[in-house]
Amino acid sequence: MTNVENAIKYFYDNQNRMTDSYLDLVRIPSISNDADRRDDMVRAANFLNDYLSKIGFEKTEIFPTVLHPIVFAEKKSADPAAKTLLIYGHYDVQPVDPLNEWKSDPFEPEFRGEHLFGRGASDMKGQVMATIFAVESALQSGDLPINIKFLIEGEEEIGSVSLEDFIKGHKDVLSCDMILNPDAGMVGKDRPTLVYGLRGMTYFEVRVDGPKADLHSGLWGGNVANPAIVLSEIIAKLHNPDGSVAIPGFYDQIPAMTEEERTRIASNKLTEEDILEITGSPALYGEEGFTPVERQGARPTLDVNGLYSGFISEGAKTIIPAYAKAKISCRLVPNQDPLEIFELAKDYILSIAPDTVRTTIFLHSAGPAYLADDAPGVQNLVDAMAEVWDNPVTYKREGGSIPVATVMQRELGVKSLLTGFGLPDDAIHSPNERINFPNWLKGIEALIHFYLSFGKA
Amino acid sequence: MTNVENAIKYFYDNQNRMTDSYLDLVRIPSISNDADRRDDMVRAANFLNDYLSKIGFEKTEIFPTVLHPIVFAEKKSADPAAKTLLIYGHYDVQPVDPLNEWKSDPFEPEFRGEHLFGRGASDMKGQVMATIFAVESALQSGDLPINIKFLIEGEEEIGSVSLEDFIKGHKDVLSCDMILNPDAGMVGKDRPTLVYGLRGMTYFEVRVDGPKADLHSGLWGGNVANPAIVLSEIIAKLHNPDGSVAIPGFYDQIPAMTEEERTRIASNKLTEEDILEITGSPALYGEEGFTPVERQGARPTLDVNGLYSGFISEGAKTIIPAYAKAKISCRLVPNQDPLEIFELAKDYILSIAPDTVRTTIFLHSAGPAYLADDAPGVQNLVDAMAEVWDNPVTYKREGGSIPVATVMQRELGVKSLLTGFGLPDDAIHSPNERINFPNWLKGIEALIHFYLSFGKA
Repeated sequence: MTNVENAIKYFYDNQNRMTDSYLDLVRIPSISNDADRRDDMVRAANFLNDYLSKIGFEKTEIFPTVLHPIVFAEKKSADPAAKTLLIYGHYDVQPVDPLNEWKSDPFEPEFRGEHLFGRGASDMKGQVMATIFAVESALQSGDLPINIKFLIEGEEEIGSVSLEDFIKGHKDVLSCDMILNPDAGMVGKDRPTLVYGLRGMTYFEVRVDGPKADLHSGLWGGNVANPAIVLSEIIAKLHNPDGSVAIPGFYDQIPAMTEEERTRIASNKLTEEDILEITGSPALYGEEGFTPVERQGARPTLDVNGLYSGFISEGAKTIIPAYAKAKISCRLVPNQDPLEIFELAKDYILSIAPDTVRTTIFLHSAGPAYLADDAPGVQNLVDAMAEVWDNPVTYKREGGSIPVATVMQRELGVKSLLTGFGLPDDAIHSPNERINFPNWLKGIEALIHFYLSFGKA
Repeated sequence: MTNVENAIKYFYDNQNRMTDSYLDLVRIPSISNDADRRDDMVRAANFLNDYLSKIGFEKTEIFPTVLHPIVFAEKKSADPAAKTLLIYGHYDVQPVDPLNEWKSDPFEPEFRGEHLFGRGASDMKGQVMATIFAVESALQSGDLPINIKFLIEGEEEIGSVSLEDFIKGHKDVLSCDMILNPDAGMVGKDRPTLVYGLRGMTYFEVRVDGPKADLHSGLWGGNVANPAIVLSEIIAKLHNPDGSVAIPGFYDQIPAMTEEERTRIASNKLTEEDILEITGSPALYGEEGFTPVERQGARPTLDVNGLYSGFISEGAKTIIPAYAKAKISCRLVPNQDPLEIFELAKDYILSIAPDTVRTTIFLHSAGPAYLADDAPGVQNLVDAMAEVWDNPVTYKREGGSIPVATVMQRELGVKSLLTGFGLPDDAIHSPNERINFPNWLKGIEALIHFYLSFGKA
């Protein structure tokens, strides 16, 4: 048997024991945004630290932060020339409300059919344990051809508030040649996926002030501009009839999409019907001239995330609101500068705002887009996944952002391999979170292939 | 001395005693929307009942309602042919919060300069007591040339919830030839005012539903319509560039304004500068081709009263909201049918709403406009006010509505004389409510003139 075959056999021989450990981790209610769960956060960190120590990681350490601790572990190869793989994960989970919509206790994992249900089963305790079990199994080959480091935080679901400072302060500890981040998921069952592009973002707020206080709409309606109407008129001018963003200069820095790139994006077989079913929208809507998958990851957008003015409770109140405000975010693609986009948006909005109101705009956050089709180790990962699933890998440009990948590229100089074995219907932030168990098992096989592939070189 | 001179002399001879009674009424915290004040509501009703009884009203009665009682009183003239004047008032007051912005206790009335401060001093305990003191003084002529009825409710500030049913059930008790409603105020000091027009209203809500739940704007932005944007685009199409309402047919039933009417409206000297100062708006905005006072009372409008979608707390959340909603009200002028306007608005909005969302519209309330330049007794009232202030009366078309006037016209068949002695800067629903005391004294003189003017006929 090859090393890979040995490792996979070891995994399946020990599957029940390892699965029990995975379930034990899911049982810990490590909800990072719940102040009453701080002891559980520590328990989860200790659990991972102990497990990694037990399977042979010679160095394990729990770093305190202002909030939830970070687990670090390192297992060196005997080969002094071995490259280093840093595996990122998080052990915190989302809150569970509304609890009454769960069909089983979110923290008492339960198998139903081919799924394992439980909060964190997919996002991302399942992913973290898959990477660990694969290391544990691969170690049956006696030694690994790569050094492996784990960095597992407890604050991902609350914005990784401590992680950037931790990375900045521990560049030597975290130094590596490759980064694996299995928090990105697959486009569908049996469709192994590499996420090679993330969109950036510019998030800002527009506020329109009119009268000094809410006015009686009977007494003053007809003589003063209504801030809710003015803001609506501004928002209505942010898109062209063809669905493109109307801010002058918005697209200027984006190179035309090559045929090669369009072909690669088309490997993502997400269909219109998929989008309609997942979102529940009555119809698709987007920029003309691009496919849904192109619009999802390779084209910038502008969305209103929130809108408020005046009286919004039940019933009726007859006022002209004193002000109106909108939260607006633009998803960006490579070459768009997030701060320049903010300036363009600001200039445009101020240029179309009438002088019957006072319009102000401020920036919430800005981050660039990310392309990592050339991340170190990408071919090893793609080959490993293609082999296990016997299916070509889908190259996906993700519409969202994974800030930790951007931070790691900047601070450690290494682009991340973004993948994972979660599925779109895992309900990761909703009641009845689940993982497809057979798919998860394949993920572990793929990781074993991946780790051991470096021995061939 | 004439009867009028006698009555006015009597009032000034007894001014201190009467003022003390007025202050005693202001001291009762009769806040109708406060469940803890129900005893105070009863105290205020009893106070009025007792006072009216004491000054010679032969019939006084307190009618219970499901909430706050209604005071009724009647004083018959010796002349069997005398006409009957019904005087409407309310003894309830607005809440006082924010209490810390009051410079004196809202329920311990205080004179500062020429103003009397206190909750209800102007709206409308001051008005109610002025009508009563004028009756008390006019009675010094021995008999009144008219029958006088009082109808004083305790629920005006919470929408007169019991009044319409009470009126419907007591048409005989309330039968009259003229109605005086002194809840409408003056356009400025020394500018006696007759409000002869009120706008009607159609109030509805528009809801735009997109995805079945809030979506991650990164994952789905670019492929589904954003309900907040769609609603903004709908709202942006509700007005034409000239400030007129863009709903087809909206103006069809409105006759052209006559020169006579424009001249009468122009007696209201409200200026652009007044509006800018009162509202704090940076600039005026309204329908082209009409003056500010015409736009205030004689032209219909459309305003957004409230707007909501998605995430509106502090900070940033990257979602495509599942839905967006707007509360919209149209102020209407005579000949516009409120329900027909609703249908026109609904048809238009549904015709411009895209099929990428589900758009629903429902009606909150609808009431017609009101014109009462021919209300019985109008010339007596106008002459009385013009004489006391030595100033022509301003004819005002009010932008708001006074539902009780509409109800009384429908149920009793009598249009109301809408006037009063409050001023625009009385802060009637705000901290530091006040009444201009010298102006209030003139109001009492004018009422004496008015009551006794029927004796000349």
